[in-house]
Amino acid sequence: MSGLKSKEIRLASRPSGTPVPENFELAEIDVPAIGDGQILIRNHWMSVDPYMRGRMMDVQSYVPPFQIGEALSGGAIGEVVDSNNPDVPVGTWLNHMNGWREYAISDGSFDQKIDPSLAPPEAFLGVLGMPGLTAYAGLLRIGELKQGDNVFVTAASGAVGSVVCQIAKAKGCYVAGSAGSDEKCDWLKNEAGVDAVINYKNCKTQQDLEAAMAAACPKGIDVYFENVGGDHLISALNLMNPFGRMPLCGMISRYNDTAPQPGPWNLILAVGKSLKMQGFIVSNHLDMAEDFLRDVPAWLAEGKIKRKETIYEGIERAPDAFMGLFSGANFGKMLVKLS
Amino acid sequence: MSGLKSKEIRLASRPSGTPVPENFELAEIDVPAIGDGQILIRNHWMSVDPYMRGRMMDVQSYVPPFQIGEALSGGAIGEVVDSNNPDVPVGTWLNHMNGWREYAISDGSFDQKIDPSLAPPEAFLGVLGMPGLTAYAGLLRIGELKQGDNVFVTAASGAVGSVVCQIAKAKGCYVAGSAGSDEKCDWLKNEAGVDAVINYKNCKTQQDLEAAMAAACPKGIDVYFENVGGDHLISALNLMNPFGRMPLCGMISRYNDTAPQPGPWNLILAVGKSLKMQGFIVSNHLDMAEDFLRDVPAWLAEGKIKRKETIYEGIERAPDAFMGLFSGANFGKMLVKLS
Repeated sequence: MSGLKSKEIRLASRPSGTPVPENFELAEIDVPAIGDGQILIRNHWMSVDPYMRGRMMDVQSYVPPFQIGEALSGGAIGEVVDSNNPDVPVGTWLNHMNGWREYAISDGSFDQKIDPSLAPPEAFLGVLGMPGLTAYAGLLRIGELKQGDNVFVTAASGAVGSVVCQIAKAKGCYVAGSAGSDEKCDWLKNEAGVDAVINYKNCKTQQDLEAAMAAACPKGIDVYFENVGGDHLISALNLMNPFGRMPLCGMISRYNDTAPQPGPWNLILAVGKSLKMQGFIVSNHLDMAEDFLRDVPAWLAEGKIKRKETIYEGIERAPDAFMGLFSGANFGKMLVKLS
Repeated sequence: MSGLKSKEIRLASRPSGTPVPENFELAEIDVPAIGDGQILIRNHWMSVDPYMRGRMMDVQSYVPPFQIGEALSGGAIGEVVDSNNPDVPVGTWLNHMNGWREYAISDGSFDQKIDPSLAPPEAFLGVLGMPGLTAYAGLLRIGELKQGDNVFVTAASGAVGSVVCQIAKAKGCYVAGSAGSDEKCDWLKNEAGVDAVINYKNCKTQQDLEAAMAAACPKGIDVYFENVGGDHLISALNLMNPFGRMPLCGMISRYNDTAPQPGPWNLILAVGKSLKMQGFIVSNHLDMAEDFLRDVPAWLAEGKIKRKETIYEGIERAPDAFMGLFSGANFGKMLVKLS
């Protein structure tokens, strides 16, 4: 495999506020020969996810920060093209964490083999991968979903939200959600089977948004799936039913803040309404993967869950794909096709 | 019993912001003769509690609002002095909800008989009553207390907080707390056995408070028992350990707000740290009363829990006692002695 080149995207500088193209740089390296026990992976797909914004800051969190001048990393799907590891022969398809590059070298130990006959490989970065399990664990375990619950999903057409909506429908719940375009709302209503949708960009004020959410949830909200924060959260606190659950998956409206923004002024409602707000990280719920990989492929096969993906082509476009997460350019799972 | 007079405190007007004396009026009524099945109770003790502030506003909540011109109500301990109900004979001691008056008439059906040989009757308004059960349910069920947890208690010398501190110590935890005077802090340290205390009035800024809390909790916070809100909550979010639990019992710093105050700007930390913030109301946890009445009297007898009460004498002082809750005049349980 000598003479092979691999393009990769490196962190050029840490974003201040919304990421800009200058925070990224494209580089090309010579792919080295693999060592004992190592494998060479040709990446076909890579994932961009909102949590990566946190890793671009130089702070300790549940994942270590990216380093300036080094290639970024993240979920990817690839095929083994060279192998010194008999457990991972050439031709094996892997779901692994060495994305943002065309070729990756690994010892295979933390890579997950996938069966591309089950679903297209890119599905393992979305519905059948980390975003899907995030939706599954967040809704069922953290959200303690019960049949008949009234569910409100923010960023409902996103990688996680779109799966949350469809799992809740498969479980016999009333589901409403908000998204940022009429096209997304139409898909949620007509394809994902969501009962009521809101294009939040038509809501000028928090009061407008709350009125729209109240109309979409005439029986209040039992489970509020939080991906965005801000006015959505204030409105939800006002509309929650007693004993409501609020899985906190993310707050994308806050990720690019350069100064502290006020939290919800009405958080005190959590006391009188006995609300539970609970943050979670999917990696702490991997024990649910077995149930997840039983349920979700079945729902996919039955048409109860539909895949929705936005695909950018070529590693050069990976920064655009990532930046697009914060402007709502993604519709369903945002992916970059590398080959 | 003809010719008997009963003084009572009525709601004269709804408070705007901090309650003032003009919101209350003292009245005296002729005690009517009791009807079939009724009992007449001479109240010896009554309770003032922060939750009553909410009932003074004309909004629906988990308890209905007080009405202007009518006597207030709340927890009280009294002795039956006249009875047309053979189940509740003269001489019975009752814990009931017709406080803010010297005499109460009832059919006895919702009143709880107490055994004054177990503890002084007023203890059933504090450690052995609603505040005690609030502490017990909030810490053990909502807070999911585990041995060795690092616990931080706000309003630690209050009716609920003082019991939370002592239950956590009885359960083998490290306990720190904040209170509003050196005298309260001394009691917490020397009598209640709290490991580290903060007089929050010495902290000029949120940053000061957070530094003091960090010093008091060198291993971070696993359970934060929330009675106050505001800067304490912001600081706690910064100091919580992963998988921390935050029972939300009340936010007394917010009860007299006349305009919305910003919520915690750092609420987003709940995602990455997998925090659980959960509001609760003691009346939804009455199923724990049996365990509570097994454990807490035993801890009292063993000296693991000490009672602390602030007593105002005479029904005329009940408004002062209530208003004192918001200026920190209470040290332990605030009580009014009526006879």
